[in-house]
Amino acid sequence: MRIITSIAEMQTTARELRRCSTLALAPTMGALHAGHLSLIAAAKRDCTHVAASIFVNPLQFGPNEDFSRYPRTFEADCAALTAAGVDILFAPSAETLIPAGATTFVEVAGISDRLDGAHRPGHFRGVATIVAKLFNIVAPDRAYFGQKDAAQLAVLRAMVRDLNFSVEIVACPIVREADGLALSSRNSYLTAEQRARATILHCSLTAAADLHARGERNAQALIATMQQMLASEPTAVVEYAAVVDPDTLLPLSDTTRGALIAVAARLGETRLIDNYLLGADHA
Amino acid sequence: MRIITSIAEMQTTARELRRCSTLALAPTMGALHAGHLSLIAAAKRDCTHVAASIFVNPLQFGPNEDFSRYPRTFEADCAALTAAGVDILFAPSAETLIPAGATTFVEVAGISDRLDGAHRPGHFRGVATIVAKLFNIVAPDRAYFGQKDAAQLAVLRAMVRDLNFSVEIVACPIVREADGLALSSRNSYLTAEQRARATILHCSLTAAADLHARGERNAQALIATMQQMLASEPTAVVEYAAVVDPDTLLPLSDTTRGALIAVAARLGETRLIDNYLLGADHA
Repeated sequence: MRIITSIAEMQTTARELRRCSTLALAPTMGALHAGHLSLIAAAKRDCTHVAASIFVNPLQFGPNEDFSRYPRTFEADCAALTAAGVDILFAPSAETLIPAGATTFVEVAGISDRLDGAHRPGHFRGVATIVAKLFNIVAPDRAYFGQKDAAQLAVLRAMVRDLNFSVEIVACPIVREADGLALSSRNSYLTAEQRARATILHCSLTAAADLHARGERNAQALIATMQQMLASEPTAVVEYAAVVDPDTLLPLSDTTRGALIAVAARLGETRLIDNYLLGADHA
Repeated sequence: MRIITSIAEMQTTARELRRCSTLALAPTMGALHAGHLSLIAAAKRDCTHVAASIFVNPLQFGPNEDFSRYPRTFEADCAALTAAGVDILFAPSAETLIPAGATTFVEVAGISDRLDGAHRPGHFRGVATIVAKLFNIVAPDRAYFGQKDAAQLAVLRAMVRDLNFSVEIVACPIVREADGLALSSRNSYLTAEQRARATILHCSLTAAADLHARGERNAQALIATMQQMLASEPTAVVEYAAVVDPDTLLPLSDTTRGALIAVAARLGETRLIDNYLLGADHA
């Protein structure tokens, strides 16, 4: 695996790779787990060449968030990406990717203020701006993101559509632990006790999905079920439990046309998110 | 000349053209004059293939500005572009380029609020957003803009730098009438009397440039000269007369390292702009 830290070198290399083949990009913040590696596996199936990026993006962290303590495991990440067959790792420094004096941002208005965006002001502006830069630098044919960050997917799909990026966004299913906890680099923050209790997010979603499977289509009923389940774990401080349109992130009153059910909660200092996609009823 | 109105067709065509050659783009709002054609001539010299775009961008007009009456001369524009040797004209409808539901914008913070941006709130956000879209759709190697829109050039150069677009911005010199008036599609709004008086913008700039050539380096002295000249034409309502850094558009106190001197004024309803680049002193 070739490691590139220079923007110009990455642009030149990507241009050569795209000439007679397809190029995939899996943008990450490192601290890689099996969820990230599932993106690489999907990219390997679809494209001739696969690039990954590692960049802990300061623009997407709020002033009181975990930027400084976000896990950084570069050596292990490189080994995992090499083993997974990644051709190129783009790993620029913060000074390289966000030089002093840069003032341009990309804002997906509306969607960026919903779900996680409502609780993390400026988060999705930071995400959209850096992903736009990565798309311009790497110019991949396809870019791979995890379904776990469902709101991020909605923001980036809107950005690609609205700004006409020649990139296909591919969403990969959530990878879970045996007990249902969605994999996240932030799970490493959890104490053993918090880790045991963290399954409550997944449990609340399966309870709502079960209710939906038994015929309930009323969004308020599904939300009440999620909230009831989450309330059974009083150490979990709920940020949202929502039933929304997966593209606009706007609340839905019923789930007959499918829905994204999503939860966010804090266990101690650690913010966790999870979601399920409910399918549409057959016409 | 091939005329393309579909985004997908433009993207496919541009991709084919770039494969073994260089592609230029000259973005315009139509109502073409010799200034626009100088962009095409420069593009023809530099690149294998030349595309132009015509799109009267509603996002860059304020609610009380001249969007509805902006001159639209599509047939004549096509004839001029064909005669100039343009290969492809991209001319999407407003519904095609800005579909309902689009909410993403590109903002070059800071620079966008200076000079024209200070007098046209949201103008440069509209410019940057549409030019970003055109860059993604056409993906030109080089894009050609007129030096007359000096603030626009600063905004777009910052956007390309900050978002890492693989596009070289090329600025082309201002083309002037025999009496010095900078060519502009908006000159067609002027009555014969206003047209005669409109040379005051150019006169104020040449007065300041002459003063600079005679050794004056104090920005306030140059501004005073411009204002004095502009005041001699009381029907011209001055918006700004400024000495700024051409990249940041921030005011300069002296011109030893070069400067952009720029003026904006209204004659009746018609807003006109003009500028000069002053070179740096030799070290």
